[in-house]
Formats: sequence, structure tokens, C-alpha cells
Amino acid sequence: MNKIYIVGIGPGSSDYLTKKAIETVKNSDITVGSERAIKLFDEIQEKISFNVKDLVEKLEEAVELAINGSTVSILSTGDPGFSGVLKTVLRIADEKGFNKENIEVIPGISSLQLAAAKNHIQWDMANVMTFHGRENIEDILPVINNGKTTIALPSRKVKDMAQFLLDNNVNPNRKVTVCERLSYDNEKIVHSTLKEIANSEFTYMCIMIIY
Amino acid sequence: MNKIYIVGIGPGSSDYLTKKAIETVKNSDITVGSERAIKLFDEIQEKISFNVKDLVEKLEEAVELAINGSTVSILSTGDPGFSGVLKTVLRIADEKGFNKENIEVIPGISSLQLAAAKNHIQWDMANVMTFHGRENIEDILPVINNGKTTIALPSRKVKDMAQFLLDNNVNPNRKVTVCERLSYDNEKIVHSTLKEIANSEFTYMCIMIIY
Repeated sequence: MNKIYIVGIGPGSSDYLTKKAIETVKNSDITVGSERAIKLFDEIQEKISFNVKDLVEKLEEAVELAINGSTVSILSTGDPGFSGVLKTVLRIADEKGFNKENIEVIPGISSLQLAAAKNHIQWDMANVMTFHGRENIEDILPVINNGKTTIALPSRKVKDMAQFLLDNNVNPNRKVTVCERLSYDNEKIVHSTLKEIANSEFTYMCIMIIY
Repeated sequence: MNKIYIVGIGPGSSDYLTKKAIETVKNSDITVGSERAIKLFDEIQEKISFNVKDLVEKLEEAVELAINGSTVSILSTGDPGFSGVLKTVLRIADEKGFNKENIEVIPGISSLQLAAAKNHIQWDMANVMTFHGRENIEDILPVINNGKTTIALPSRKVKDMAQFLLDNNVNPNRKVTVCERLSYDNEKIVHSTLKEIANSEFTYMCIMIIY
């Protein structure tokens, strides 16, 4: 019925799916998402998977399918409204003349929320920032010394982010926690200092907390 | 087994419960929460309900029960780390000598996330603020004109918040959206202006978006 749902799937494990996400996918004609995201759902009708390279192309296909009458769910890691695919889908809908009132966003648990939870942090009192897929890394500098904890989704490698902070005279002994692969079986949480983190290797699925 | 879970239950409807929240409550010896929160769960063992007046007393009881060997879930509206009970529970645990490593926070969907979702807002680009149960209303002034959308949980009445902004020379024609009773059957979303909102009545369960 010409409807697009942008469904937040949480940080990665199916434990963080909401009932609403599960029901929405179950009732959609077509679900579009990464292989990893699609696998989280037990009940799914037709599916279309995308990867980093063909993401935009598959999102365009999803919007076309909705224009042609299908109910389509697009899966978004974490919360679609926090560093998710919302912006891209809205742009494509605009280009193709799809009525945005027929786009419904289902919020999900962002990995930053899980990082805050694991470390007992009130994130309403923190600087919460995403540098994921952006080139705005310098935006961290005005807030890094404002006395609050900073929770960040790094742009590229964690060690590069740490080095950038060191290069900008942030105290090398600042306490840093890196949360890697949160909610997965091989989740790892490392408590260290900025200078140590600048010499450590992590995967790309990380949250960095700077105290 | 001397464990406390602080469980985020989302904005109000059971649709936004995560699998993790449902499983945690099901497996807890005792679940402590408001009547409204407890009702969301189909499978629950022993329960203790609190209200605004006896909240702290019941949270103290919850910590005592965990000290005496029970697995206790404490239900928190929205996300425990965003304007939730996390801080209060941590303080009580400290006072009673309960090992904080045995406190696990289960994140939930905050009503601010649902407000952002309903209005297609990327909240990583917004000023996200809570004034709930606090007296820090003036903290909104340094950011209200920074060019970003502001999503706020008001302290008291929405109209008082609007009047406070008007009194501090914020443009009366600023577009404002109020989201009331989000996720409930009688949910209401009103698009208006600051000066109109200052003359409107809403319940206490609101999110205010200032564009």
C-alpha cells in the first residue's frame, strides 16, 4: 500500500529488536537490508539485500517498489535517526516524488545507548556525537574539554580518532573506554587512556567514550 | 543471584519493548516499576509497584532484595540512561554497599527518539535536552539559536517552557511541534508556533521540538 518503513534494528544482536520492528517486517511485502540485518528476523516475506557498494541503488529500488504499491521495510542499524539511513531515504523519496507522509520511522536502540548502558553513563549529561560517514571530526574539539563525558561513533579507525585528539593537545592521560562489537558474542570493552588507544587496533564497529 | 537490571521499557506502548527487556523481566525473581510499566509485561514473577511519592523508598527496597540474593528488575520509562532512574539507583547502591558491577542497564527507546522518528528528524544533528525533574531550564538558551533543531523533554508544562523562551526573546514565530502521549492510542502531534504553544494546554507526557 505505497508505504515505506525505516526500521531500526538496534546494535546488532536480535536481543535488541523491538516488538514493533519484528511485526513491521513480518507484515511488509519486501524487506531491504544488509545480509546481517535480514538474518535477525525469523519471519520475513520477500527480501532484498544490499552491501556498502550498492546501498544507494538498492534504496532507490526500494522506493520504486513502494511507488508501485508494495509495503517496504528498510532495515537500519541502530536508530535510523542517529547516523542511520533516514537522510538518504528522504532524499531519494524527494527525487522520485514519493509522498513522505507514507514514510514511517521505527526507532531502534543505537549502539551509543548500549555503550552508555554498559558503562552506567547518563547520556543526557554527555556529549553525544557521530562522525560515522562524515568528515566533521573537528566538531569534537569545541566540546572535548567542556567537563562532560563524550560518547562518539568514530569516523574511521579508533586509533586515528585518538591520534587526532592527541595532535590537538588533548591530555594523553584522559581515560578512554572503547566498546567493540557491542551486543555480539565477541563483544569487547577496553578501559585505557588516550595515548594507549592511539597505539591499539580495533575493528570498525566501535564506540569511543572519552571521560 | 544478587543482580539488578535497570530495564528500559520505551515510551509507553508494549510495541517498543525489546526482546532483551521481555526476557530479563521474565527471568527476574522480582520486578519493580510503576503500575503502568508492570502492565506491559505478560510474563512476570513477583512484582512491586511504586508511584511518584514512594519511588525512592521502593528503589531502596529493590536494592535490599538484590543484596539478599534476588535477581531484581527495575523498570525505567524510555531509556534508563536518558532522564531515567539510573542515577538514583546508582546512588542507593553506593549507600548500601551493593557492588555496581552487578548492575546491568538494558537500554530502551526514549520518547525523544520516537518524537524524532515521527517527525523524520536526524537527532544526531539536533540539540537533545532533558529538563525532566531538573531546574536547569536556562541551559536551553545557549543552544536555542544555534541553527539546529532542539528536541526537549520539558521540566513542567509545555506552555511554561514556551513562555520561558518568549520571555528570553526567542522569536515567537519559531515553528514548534508538540508530541503528546507518544505511542499511546490517544497520541497527539501538534504543529504550531512558539507563541501559540504558550497559550495551549497539554498533559505532562510531552516532547517539544523547536525548529
